[in-house]
Amino acid sequence: MSTDARYELFYWPGLQGRGEFVRLAFEDAGVAYVDVARLPEAQGGGAGAVVRLLRDESLATPALAPPVLRVGSVVVAQTANILQFVAPALGLVPDDAASRAWAHQLQLTVADVVSEVHDTHHPISTGRYYEEQKAEAKLRARDFLAMRLPKFLGYFERALARNGGTYFVGGAASYVDLSVFQIMVGLAYAFPRAMAAAEAQHPLLVALRDRVAARPNIAAYLASPRRLAFNENGIFRRYPELDLAE
Amino acid sequence: MSTDARYELFYWPGLQGRGEFVRLAFEDAGVAYVDVARLPEAQGGGAGAVVRLLRDESLATPALAPPVLRVGSVVVAQTANILQFVAPALGLVPDDAASRAWAHQLQLTVADVVSEVHDTHHPISTGRYYEEQKAEAKLRARDFLAMRLPKFLGYFERALARNGGTYFVGGAASYVDLSVFQIMVGLAYAFPRAMAAAEAQHPLLVALRDRVAARPNIAAYLASPRRLAFNENGIFRRYPELDLAE
Repeated sequence: MSTDARYELFYWPGLQGRGEFVRLAFEDAGVAYVDVARLPEAQGGGAGAVVRLLRDESLATPALAPPVLRVGSVVVAQTANILQFVAPALGLVPDDAASRAWAHQLQLTVADVVSEVHDTHHPISTGRYYEEQKAEAKLRARDFLAMRLPKFLGYFERALARNGGTYFVGGAASYVDLSVFQIMVGLAYAFPRAMAAAEAQHPLLVALRDRVAARPNIAAYLASPRRLAFNENGIFRRYPELDLAE
Repeated sequence: MSTDARYELFYWPGLQGRGEFVRLAFEDAGVAYVDVARLPEAQGGGAGAVVRLLRDESLATPALAPPVLRVGSVVVAQTANILQFVAPALGLVPDDAASRAWAHQLQLTVADVVSEVHDTHHPISTGRYYEEQKAEAKLRARDFLAMRLPKFLGYFERALARNGGTYFVGGAASYVDLSVFQIMVGLAYAFPRAMAAAEAQHPLLVALRDRVAARPNIAAYLASPRRLAFNENGIFRRYPELDLAE
């Protein structure tokens, strides 16, 4: 796979969601990609593009859910798996197997955070509205903020410190740094009160977040219309009743 | 990494849990591994061995949770990541990047199943007893059996069919086949009534389960004391009130 490959990302339009972790990697690398579902429907875009891919019976490697990346004849799904697959060509992971396993270990922990954040607003059923499971969501969110968030952030802070404090993997930015940036800003969107307190205790993660935001390609991306705003259709949702009490 | 490496698996003793996916790979390959926490405490075993590893401040690549695999100086965590890391040496994945991405995509979907099954008995808090969240567990389990289980099994059945019906990846057994065997038997333990109905609709998965169980090294393992029984400390727990009503 070379960077000449045409990369097509399939993800629901209108939200950052899990697709955002993939977008950040392409944006940081300055490598062109097509965000297929954000094209006009007349050009094959819209949510229908995602649905058609998921239902395509000719695919040897079907996907259960987006994001899905198509690179020529290869179709890859599962966010962390997509990142791992494209990172070498994007220059976003070191070459050796041990470093790649370490990067992926951290990325799967990012995936765990994403999954648990999703469950703060959907603890009972992915298929039902938040309003139908609000009471349980309050319980789950309380537990997440009290028990899980400190555990995850403490782990990432420690992992970053172990590697010198600047990068998670090796001596340069990897897809992991970009993804941890995304969970830091996502968590701050969803739980501003809880994160204000947590950030004070995780200075390395806060500095990493700010360094990633200042990377030229990321800064340009964040200022562009390609970066969607956080909203209540994504993973990170601002439901004030789920945040710490004032 | 060669098969001469000494493999040390760190996982809680007394339950199959996520460690079982790793055990099955070593057992099927017939490659020796040390299940460290199942050694006597006098030999460095017991749950303390896991705790010591998690707290080891000298590790460059700390783990948040078990299973953790140590191979010489390399320490790798996250179940799917461990499998991906060792599978080439164990002969449990094809050589090409596209096949490996496909295998890992499926394995991460296995991980999603495991996580959602865990949440059927712990929908509110991992840190609290099942009995403290039983009402919510009933709601979550009902949704899982009605909406998620058919989705996951339907996906795996389809994926297997797309590859010819016998193996998930390429033309030989991979770590994915072993892991899907494990979720099939685990689900049947946890939800015998729901799975009796589901199995009738997923003949390829049932046949795969039976073929894996009959593989000589797996059959020997399942008959050995190394294979722990399912129990209510693991991922797959038999709480009849969470299964389909009779």
